[in-house]
Amino acid sequence: MNWNSTLLAQIGSESVAASIDYSVEITQGLLTTNNVWMMLCTALVFIMHLGFAGVETGFGQAKNTVNILFKNTVTPIIGILTYAVCGFFLMYPGFEVPGWFSFDSAGWSMFYMNPENADITAEYADAGYTYWTDFLFQAMFAATCATIVSGAIAERVKISAYLVFTLIFVGIVYPLIGSWKWGGGALDAMGFYDFAGSTLVHSVGGWGALAGVILVGPRIGKYVNGKTVDKPGASVPLAVIGVFLLWFGWFGFNGGSVLSADPGLVSMVLVITCLGAAAGGMGGFLAAYFAFKRLDLGMVLNGILAGLVGITAGADVFKPGASLLIGFIAGILVVLSAVFLDKMKLDDVVGAVSVHLTCGVWGTLAVGIFSTNPDHSFLTQLIGVAVCGAMAFGSAFLIFYILKVTVGIRVSEEHERSGLDSHEHGIRGYTIVYDE
Amino acid sequence: MNWNSTLLAQIGSESVAASIDYSVEITQGLLTTNNVWMMLCTALVFIMHLGFAGVETGFGQAKNTVNILFKNTVTPIIGILTYAVCGFFLMYPGFEVPGWFSFDSAGWSMFYMNPENADITAEYADAGYTYWTDFLFQAMFAATCATIVSGAIAERVKISAYLVFTLIFVGIVYPLIGSWKWGGGALDAMGFYDFAGSTLVHSVGGWGALAGVILVGPRIGKYVNGKTVDKPGASVPLAVIGVFLLWFGWFGFNGGSVLSADPGLVSMVLVITCLGAAAGGMGGFLAAYFAFKRLDLGMVLNGILAGLVGITAGADVFKPGASLLIGFIAGILVVLSAVFLDKMKLDDVVGAVSVHLTCGVWGTLAVGIFSTNPDHSFLTQLIGVAVCGAMAFGSAFLIFYILKVTVGIRVSEEHERSGLDSHEHGIRGYTIVYDE
Amino acid sequence: MNWNSTLLAQIGSESVAASIDYSVEITQGLLTTNNVWMMLCTALVFIMHLGFAGVETGFGQAKNTVNILFKNTVTPIIGILTYAVCGFFLMYPGFEVPGWFSFDSAGWSMFYMNPENADITAEYADAGYTYWTDFLFQAMFAATCATIVSGAIAERVKISAYLVFTLIFVGIVYPLIGSWKWGGGALDAMGFYDFAGSTLVHSVGGWGALAGVILVGPRIGKYVNGKTVDKPGASVPLAVIGVFLLWFGWFGFNGGSVLSADPGLVSMVLVITCLGAAAGGMGGFLAAYFAFKRLDLGMVLNGILAGLVGITAGADVFKPGASLLIGFIAGILVVLSAVFLDKMKLDDVVGAVSVHLTCGVWGTLAVGIFSTNPDHSFLTQLIGVAVCGAMAFGSAFLIFYILKVTVGIRVSEEHERSGLDSHEHGIRGYTIVYDE
Repeated sequence: MNWNSTLLAQIGSESVAASIDYSVEITQGLLTTNNVWMMLCTALVFIMHLGFAGVETGFGQAKNTVNILFKNTVTPIIGILTYAVCGFFLMYPGFEVPGWFSFDSAGWSMFYMNPENADITAEYADAGYTYWTDFLFQAMFAATCATIVSGAIAERVKISAYLVFTLIFVGIVYPLIGSWKWGGGALDAMGFYDFAGSTLVHSVGGWGALAGVILVGPRIGKYVNGKTVDKPGASVPLAVIGVFLLWFGWFGFNGGSVLSADPGLVSMVLVITCLGAAAGGMGGFLAAYFAFKRLDLGMVLNGILAGLVGITAGADVFKPGASLLIGFIAGILVVLSAVFLDKMKLDDVVGAVSVHLTCGVWGTLAVGIFSTNPDHSFLTQLIGVAVCGAMAFGSAFLIFYILKVTVGIRVSEEHERSGLDSHEHGIRGYTIVYDE
Repeated sequence: MNWNSTLLAQIGSESVAASIDYSVEITQGLLTTNNVWMMLCTALVFIMHLGFAGVETGFGQAKNTVNILFKNTVTPIIGILTYAVCGFFLMYPGFEVPGWFSFDSAGWSMFYMNPENADITAEYADAGYTYWTDFLFQAMFAATCATIVSGAIAERVKISAYLVFTLIFVGIVYPLIGSWKWGGGALDAMGFYDFAGSTLVHSVGGWGALAGVILVGPRIGKYVNGKTVDKPGASVPLAVIGVFLLWFGWFGFNGGSVLSADPGLVSMVLVITCLGAAAGGMGGFLAAYFAFKRLDLGMVLNGILAGLVGITAGADVFKPGASLLIGFIAGILVVLSAVFLDKMKLDDVVGAVSVHLTCGVWGTLAVGIFSTNPDHSFLTQLIGVAVCGAMAFGSAFLIFYILKVTVGIRVSEEHERSGLDSHEHGIRGYTIVYDE
Repeated sequence: MNWNSTLLAQIGSESVAASIDYSVEITQGLLTTNNVWMMLCTALVFIMHLGFAGVETGFGQAKNTVNILFKNTVTPIIGILTYAVCGFFLMYPGFEVPGWFSFDSAGWSMFYMNPENADITAEYADAGYTYWTDFLFQAMFAATCATIVSGAIAERVKISAYLVFTLIFVGIVYPLIGSWKWGGGALDAMGFYDFAGSTLVHSVGGWGALAGVILVGPRIGKYVNGKTVDKPGASVPLAVIGVFLLWFGWFGFNGGSVLSADPGLVSMVLVITCLGAAAGGMGGFLAAYFAFKRLDLGMVLNGILAGLVGITAGADVFKPGASLLIGFIAGILVVLSAVFLDKMKLDDVVGAVSVHLTCGVWGTLAVGIFSTNPDHSFLTQLIGVAVCGAMAFGSAFLIFYILKVTVGIRVSEEHERSGLDSHEHGIRGYTIVYDE
């Protein structure tokens, strides 16, 4: 493996250089540890897809449970498959010049033809984890942005339209935007900073959700005579399971975004992440209490997610005190944003736009305010937010619009009223009947 | 970093000493590995809060589901926030003399003002994980004791009273008692042993639960004409999810309490933990079968938790055979304890007192009987149990009593009968209705 | 510890050999990392038992929820306890000659009498993880095969009969078959390959399930006038939770089967595993869509599991492209197999035979077709499948048959119709009632 020579050159001592196995083992040790961490972070990010499924099924109505679960099960499948087909090679163009659009065709060939060459790829040898871990960690991220859209437009979107949207959004749009920063492209060159994806993942998903919500329209009976009608979710326990799994998964989402197991940095990131989540939950709790005079569990849960999204852009450059503040503000913003969207008659079933777009933007801008790295600037952050937003919203709007005027993106009124489960899936979410 | 010099002195070989980066990497490797383990244990302990939520929501009645989930979601939030504000610095007073009460004000300043100094803290450098990991691992433990109380007094406690109780109990009482042993305080000096918290975490929570149960009184209709009336839980699957997640989390709770990734010791601890859990489940199974002539899933589940709590005080000093016995006895004890509490008209919704107090005490005393370390004595263990019990029960009783005579700790009869969800939270736990 | 000398001999350099602590630390580092990985894989395999519980409870009828959960909770308990009593020592006979049947009595003594000797066991020192980790990782596997049976024969099997079957099948049959390959026995000598248990775990469970399904007979009302009647599952969300947790756990099931944290190999295995799962889900999706003209979530879920089972026999010797194909075919096979079983009036509640037997056999044979290791042959794979199948099916059939003609294996018609929960367990799975 090609890092031996480098290491040995660095050491330069004859007696040590003689024992090759020995010196390999040293670097091998750190590589192995980093890789273990990254693989487990991958598993944690994977389980976030169950978290999203829980939140959406819990907050959605029982008559659409199977439909929601179908989308949430197929979305990570599409995410992984499209990432293997093209996403990974669009997002990390490797030796290509990664400005605004490139494709790593050499990497593609290696992946399918000579996978045995993959683990001597130089760039990962020293940094500390393998090519395969890198692929899988990134693949688990990919489907996230579509899942966010799924939650917002649930209960009335036509599933075929959603699946086509997901195929394009996850397969092409997400990796393209990702390449601008994480693939070393144009935004990266500009100095834009987004540690683990407040913008690249969450706001991209949030913009897609907003486009979807606008084009698909509110559910029947959601806004009646200027009043917002609550549609009770099927299962609050499922929503809670979802949020806790998302928080759990965020240990990997943010912790893995360090891209090594560097002890000081990773553990600091986890502390910042958890402080942001807790402060966000408290912010949502208090904001909802003052706004609605109610102990609103939904807003505590969305506050936690808001804090997590908010902290994600700079979890490695915020101090503990700042993270408490950023999370708390995110928790308040998510309540205000939800109220505002309802005022605009934008019907978002799970609050995805408020959590992922509003707080994704907030977190990215917060880097420009609170970062301990003096190179980060508010203006650059704002430009990055705007550029990614224009691309994500524009693409999503275009895809949904074309689908709308061709195959249609909304189910029939009859299907919506009676529930999507019986029509498209032939089964019900719950069959809890006892013969008395 | 300050461990280089020690290491180099130890090695003493010129040719190796010349390559500083090289030798750093060695210790860095072990530090990194230990830290990875501890961070993942932290994530596992975190997910235990979802486990508690599952158990309590599953065993509680459907009309109080949202209320229970609200408490269980806000409790870890309060736990993390108070731990960051004061708990951590009370529990691990650092350079202060940690007798019965001290506060690490220097640590507090560093945490908020100069966090960048934290990862060169000498005490963690050699042991093997970072300051931040330490904080977060301990923070995840903190809320556990309040969650235990929550389960016992569910379905009739006023939520405002519970939140105030939690703030004080988690923010001050728990870290104070913890400092006596884990912070190097008075009980530690005495030779008291509690590996991962059968006493410091579980029995502290259990004593708080007992105080709460006494003061808040049984649910309406629980004890009628000398008979105990079963209140069917909303969802047995949720309770099972909860118990499995708690067992899963216990890999981190006990495995992380080794405070390093020491291969032999940690893996031994995990074996002891799982044997205790399995034997506890079998004990609960058989005890309930002989007592009630029924395949009582609730008692198998509580038996598993009983075995886990019982094994926790000495998971690093028990042999496999002893762990099977300790777990099995814990599984029997939890059944006997539940029957006894009902006889005393002490209404504990989820059996928290039986699991965490009865078996926490049993496990701590079992160290005095079965420990492979001859320094452990039954008498010292008994003293530790008594001292912590007096403090935990006394504080909890006092807090609840003051709340009772001031703001009140119990909801109105009307609210209790119709369920807390509709009154305090405005939504229902489940809305599974189909239009036929 | 006994690996120092080996290492030092290997190195042979005087100046390095002088610093004993130093060189220990190096190997200690890798051992520690490997062991951390293996312990976490153990935790992941453990949580698969919750995954199975979710799938079976979700797909089973609500009136049998507690019964299913009782079986799924007690099964891993029996698995761990019998593995500690005899399974481990049958499966890994240590210094005994492991042909078709041996027992490591020396290991048994050490486990219970001198556990302190365990972590200097030579065979694990170099490979990289401890004796205790090995025991626990394997113990978590053990119960899996019985859980598979449980799902197939749910809703009408007598629980006492199931428990006796599990005791024998998990305690003796599974470890015996396992010893033939993983314990270094006769199949291993023959060149048979089964990386993580498509045959040794999944098809063994699948054969047991088939024997059980044949002998216990279909549920009342399942096959009426030549038509198959759907029995709606209680909770689709639970089934989804189950499948995601199984996929999550498979990171440990396959990743841990490398038996070290070898970065290149383990991460490759995880990629192959996830590609297989995603392709399997897609295969199930499309096959069911063409067969039933329905977006069949159940078949997507079983397709995921089919892909996982199919990829398991050769996750370390398949290329990415092959893994997509193998998974996709498994997803189609699971649909065909389910249709075929219903044609044969073999009533399998959760599709366990189709997932674990059909795709377990497919995956094992696929090694003979797609393996990158030229030593693997289709014929040897076929022989291994046949030998293990004969033993597993034969034993399971014999055990169930003896139980059938003695104590009986089927509940009364009355119990089956009204549900097992009220009769054997005295509680219901769900009590979601609101007083209006």
